[in-house]
Amino acid sequence: MEILKQIAQEAEKNTQVPAYPRSVEKVIAAVISTPNFWKVVDLSDEPLPLVAEILKLLNKHGLVVFEGNQILLTEAGNELVKKLGIETFVSHRCSCCNGRGVVIEGSLKEAFEKFLKIQEKRPPAIHQYDQGFVTPENTFARVALADDRGDLRGKNVIVLGDDDLMSIALALSGLPKKVTILEIDERLVNFIKEVSNEYNLNIDARVHDLRQPLPEDVVGAYDTFFTDPPETVEAIKAFVGRGVATLKSERCAGYFGVTRRESSLDKWRRIQKVLLEMGLVITDLLHNFNEYVNWDYYEDMRGWQLTPVKEPPKDIWYKSTQFRVETVRGFKGFNDPIVGDIYNDAESSTT
Amino acid sequence: MEILKQIAQEAEKNTQVPAYPRSVEKVIAAVISTPNFWKVVDLSDEPLPLVAEILKLLNKHGLVVFEGNQILLTEAGNELVKKLGIETFVSHRCSCCNGRGVVIEGSLKEAFEKFLKIQEKRPPAIHQYDQGFVTPENTFARVALADDRGDLRGKNVIVLGDDDLMSIALALSGLPKKVTILEIDERLVNFIKEVSNEYNLNIDARVHDLRQPLPEDVVGAYDTFFTDPPETVEAIKAFVGRGVATLKSERCAGYFGVTRRESSLDKWRRIQKVLLEMGLVITDLLHNFNEYVNWDYYEDMRGWQLTPVKEPPKDIWYKSTQFRVETVRGFKGFNDPIVGDIYNDAESSTT
Repeated sequence: MEILKQIAQEAEKNTQVPAYPRSVEKVIAAVISTPNFWKVVDLSDEPLPLVAEILKLLNKHGLVVFEGNQILLTEAGNELVKKLGIETFVSHRCSCCNGRGVVIEGSLKEAFEKFLKIQEKRPPAIHQYDQGFVTPENTFARVALADDRGDLRGKNVIVLGDDDLMSIALALSGLPKKVTILEIDERLVNFIKEVSNEYNLNIDARVHDLRQPLPEDVVGAYDTFFTDPPETVEAIKAFVGRGVATLKSERCAGYFGVTRRESSLDKWRRIQKVLLEMGLVITDLLHNFNEYVNWDYYEDMRGWQLTPVKEPPKDIWYKSTQFRVETVRGFKGFNDPIVGDIYNDAESSTT
Repeated sequence: MEILKQIAQEAEKNTQVPAYPRSVEKVIAAVISTPNFWKVVDLSDEPLPLVAEILKLLNKHGLVVFEGNQILLTEAGNELVKKLGIETFVSHRCSCCNGRGVVIEGSLKEAFEKFLKIQEKRPPAIHQYDQGFVTPENTFARVALADDRGDLRGKNVIVLGDDDLMSIALALSGLPKKVTILEIDERLVNFIKEVSNEYNLNIDARVHDLRQPLPEDVVGAYDTFFTDPPETVEAIKAFVGRGVATLKSERCAGYFGVTRRESSLDKWRRIQKVLLEMGLVITDLLHNFNEYVNWDYYEDMRGWQLTPVKEPPKDIWYKSTQFRVETVRGFKGFNDPIVGDIYNDAESSTT
């Protein structure tokens, strides 16, 4: 156990990311399963900068080697695994619904087929706006989830930042009364407007920089919001706060993702405190609900600098937990200008 | 909208349970779907005492009638539904995994078949100890969930209160290194001991009243705990606090359920604040993961007194959200004696 503790302490010192013996244990357990760096990050569920540092320290201590692009346990590493009784990861994920608990069926399935075609022409994700989108199936699974929770039919729904084309998915489903989307990237807004016209979807799509306060007509006018904020505590406060500012009253809903890739559980706790302080309650936390398609600009991101092996990701590795929150008595949104750099902290890796 | 607001305010005044226009809307939406009281409580996801009161007020305002044991919308009720655009509930729940996201397969399936046989002889749930157990499939789904999250293999696991026979399920799975159970009901402890002997399960089963501090050897000795606490804020603090007191270190896990049947979302927020203050982070919230088999003593519980139609529940109606929490830096358990009545508040219905 001593070596796990030692590596954890050194890793935390070098990265400023909270690290525990269990963090090191999880990285080792991941390496038992896979030689691929991105999959190790995925399985261990620790922030990427920490995983990268732990791997370097395990290598320094002769417990893993880097052979080409592979990460492998050494003999000493295997002995440690035996000695400490470290077990590999096993999944019991439902394959019907990909572990999400909800399925896309019936009329939602028809809308999904349309969406699949439409999104083929989507503008690619660019680094400038920190973009990355989930799979089309994932986007529709969110629609299924929100409808299952009663948040769409006859409701006013707003999407704040739409890399995922949620607005199109929602409008195609025909369930909400109104769909509005505020998005900084003109390419996306134009794309959404074109699709909306072609398919008669009536999407209210506007170019808007969410660092600026919301347009007045949008404040307090919605039943449900969707967003996918950057993960510093300040960014969550600001962007989820923006979402809350669009809501009409108590018992309205918000949906957003938070990763383990760029946030430690210690940070998660601070994030959850912030949510509760806003007068929100968390009703759903669905682990790995969201799976992000690998983006082209990976060599520009911080994570690439940190990885001990320079091999581009092939399979999906970047995932997030789907949060659903609801406003209760005393809730308070945030609609002031957002200034300064709230996008980066010690745990970031995609900026 | 005015009538919804009026009924919400009067319902809150009469029950002391927070009530909103949306609460009334959800009860009406449930009545569109079903004439059965217990199913209305299930679908609306509001505390039972509040649902009962809202139904009585809807009746008073001529919007629903009680015909025999059925709850039906009147013509005026149907008009209101049309006028306000109230939509019925629709489910997108995955039928493969019953919405849980995890499945029981492979070696877990074998252990589950054994468990099915064993639990046929279980002692029935009694009111004295506020007992109610989940379905056998549900019990094993929790095992699958915990294994999927890496909380069982080679770990020390403790169960605090075992109506669900989690200890037997865990031991049958062969995954934990050690299984301990503390339970107040001697019948259950004896049953578990007999099964443990017969199947060579080595379960450490002890009679213990959790209102008393934990046995010393149990403090700080476990990686994972399971419990199912009563739902006043004080009880959660005490019983989840007990669970946390059994944990070894940071990054250890706890599992417990919280219902919408006996807790409003306003209370949920206070509960979540308490959890975070204990130095926990919430990693999973799985809505309706747990389904409780109807117990015999329903006529003794408060909910029965409150229901406007006296028809015993047939189908499962009592469900809870599965919480998974993890300890982070600064966590603190609770091991003082628990005194006074912490089991009842305005939202209780099964006590």
